Amino acid sequence: MTGPRFTRLVQSLPSTVPFVGPETQERARGAVFDARLGANENGFGPSPRAIAAMTEAAAEIWKYADPESHDLRHALAAHLGVTPDHVIVGEGIDGLLGYLVRLLIEPGDPVVTSEGAYPTFNFHVAGFGGVLHKVPYLGDAEDPAALITAARETGAKLIYIANPDNPMGSCHPAAVIAAMIEQMPEGALLILDEAYIEFAPEGTAPAIDPDDPRVIRMRTFSKGYGMAGARVAYAVAAPALIAAFHKVRNHFGMNRAAQIGALAALQDTGHLAQTVAKVDRARARLAQIAAENGLRALPSATNFVTIDCGGDGDFARRVLAGVVRRGVFIRMPFTPPQDRCIRVSCGPDGELDAFARALPQALAEARAAT
Amino acid sequence: MTGPRFTRLVQSLPSTVPFVGPETQERARGAVFDARLGANENGFGPSPRAIAAMTEAAAEIWKYADPESHDLRHALAAHLGVTPDHVIVGEGIDGLLGYLVRLLIEPGDPVVTSEGAYPTFNFHVAGFGGVLHKVPYLGDAEDPAALITAARETGAKLIYIANPDNPMGSCHPAAVIAAMIEQMPEGALLILDEAYIEFAPEGTAPAIDPDDPRVIRMRTFSKGYGMAGARVAYAVAAPALIAAFHKVRNHFGMNRAAQIGALAALQDTGHLAQTVAKVDRARARLAQIAAENGLRALPSATNFVTIDCGGDGDFARRVLAGVVRRGVFIRMPFTPPQDRCIRVSCGPDGELDAFARALPQALAEARAAT
Repeated sequence: MTGPRFTRLVQSLPSTVPFVGPETQERARGAVFDARLGANENGFGPSPRAIAAMTEAAAEIWKYADPESHDLRHALAAHLGVTPDHVIVGEGIDGLLGYLVRLLIEPGDPVVTSEGAYPTFNFHVAGFGGVLHKVPYLGDAEDPAALITAARETGAKLIYIANPDNPMGSCHPAAVIAAMIEQMPEGALLILDEAYIEFAPEGTAPAIDPDDPRVIRMRTFSKGYGMAGARVAYAVAAPALIAAFHKVRNHFGMNRAAQIGALAALQDTGHLAQTVAKVDRARARLAQIAAENGLRALPSATNFVTIDCGGDGDFARRVLAGVVRRGVFIRMPFTPPQDRCIRVSCGPDGELDAFARALPQALAEARAAT
Repeated sequence: MTGPRFTRLVQSLPSTVPFVGPETQERARGAVFDARLGANENGFGPSPRAIAAMTEAAAEIWKYADPESHDLRHALAAHLGVTPDHVIVGEGIDGLLGYLVRLLIEPGDPVVTSEGAYPTFNFHVAGFGGVLHKVPYLGDAEDPAALITAARETGAKLIYIANPDNPMGSCHPAAVIAAMIEQMPEGALLILDEAYIEFAPEGTAPAIDPDDPRVIRMRTFSKGYGMAGARVAYAVAAPALIAAFHKVRNHFGMNRAAQIGALAALQDTGHLAQTVAKVDRARARLAQIAAENGLRALPSATNFVTIDCGGDGDFARRVLAGVVRRGVFIRMPFTPPQDRCIRVSCGPDGELDAFARALPQALAEARAAT
């Protein structure tokens, strides 16, 4: 008996996955982490109104979710000043990226992103046979001009940029992104990943004509709204592109309680403002912890702080390993020269205390091993 | 400015969707349904332990779910007597079907299913360019021999069968499915959709060697466990096939509360037994309601009852429209001659009361219009 006949593309794909979850690491080390600061989760938690809505929805979980996400989509449209036909709701930005890549990319199609940018996007591009062309960061920021040039040279169907950026925490002002859109080559689509936009300075999100066929903007309830485990994100684009998602998406893919909880979270603007203020304080505290250890925290427009460990990638990896070994889950950039840094999520004081305790020991250990 | 460059396949896909949700119908009619008996949801609801677990998880929804679904997957493996490497957890059977089709089907690849069987499977096959070959039902059951013959003739990569069947509620004994597996053509994979297995008579689920490369079996928490809105299902197959899912799936696609709730539901065997008993009584009541109206209820191995309206498809569609107009959401088979029937989910007495009130009026109306 032979096994199933996989597609040629699937046969060629590696078994590697973009991220190993903290639970996997906890099982390997035989203990839970004291602090969970590695996945840019928002430890300040969701709105109490979202919790109440999800609690109420739990007993009604026997019902499928509305496959149109009507109420949430309409509320988002009102919030954004667009029509509901400009909005698609999906299972996290990861889910939406997967659908989008599927819509555009056939084997061999060129795609442009930055070396060291979001690995899950790359996973989806590879998964549909796209060919990734990566440009380096400029300083510690994604480089719009280089992305546009690469797109022109390769004839890219898709260009990915995150603003603010992950994993470096940098951001471009709105005008830079707006200018980038004006320079887009014909037939290319810009994915503007704004997962962290709620934490960015005023003036980071460009005004975009929602009917502009050159750009799709993605946002999420995972970060600012503290609902990563719910899996709710949305994209805003011209209706023709939004309509195409319906041709391929898992129409009954949304969790009902998550849909209802996200709507409640969106309406609780006070909680979001409190969260942003708490994240701002946590960023300052992380910068202070870095300084106390003789390290430099990079400016952050996100809910994490990227800390330059002052050495090379091997040194930062040793620092990271030491921090993790002391029960604090953090991550770091994958690619040089950004991999001289570690990346620490903002969280409540107790979690940052654990990081503050672990860092000097990990640093000393890493220096001793140099 | 031109729009994005969709793949040729996507350009060729229709914009139709497999199912219109009850909420869409409620918005169109301007009122909520009195009874929700159209999607084979389980109105007896989830285990109180699952509700408690999801409620507890709501405040922790700021954490991503474990991308490996370790705890749930291990519990399922123990429950099924297989290893965790034989099990994949996903966003409903719909989600798992989408991943599976993607793994195997390239444009032009042949796939075999039954005329009138699960439309969402067909949606995924079309979405990846597969060519569907459909065989008719035999009586009101899927026809294993015809499916096998069609697979041989077409060289199908995939064969779909649901046992018990939706939308007719029929089921084959385990020996028929086991014999079907023995007759599978080389290189074909059988999808055995057991979404309704918890409601079927003893002896419906065949014993399958979990290392058998010819079959993947899919089950769900949507039906027996009353958690359709949670989006948790699982598949059991040989480890090589399970491993392939990891190459393409949305690793962070699971809702955390759903994962935790499903584990609690699995452990509450008492609640499942109570649900099965309630469904059994509801099936008897629906058969009685049918008989009181001079109609015949088909035998059901599921949590719904398919009722022969005694006429043709147009007549049944009029009956359905009349029932729906009276505030009772039900559905019906799409394809003749099965479309002579309406399909009513099992539910609490109050919901069945609403159906019992609506049916005679809808029937009288439909007969008057004949």
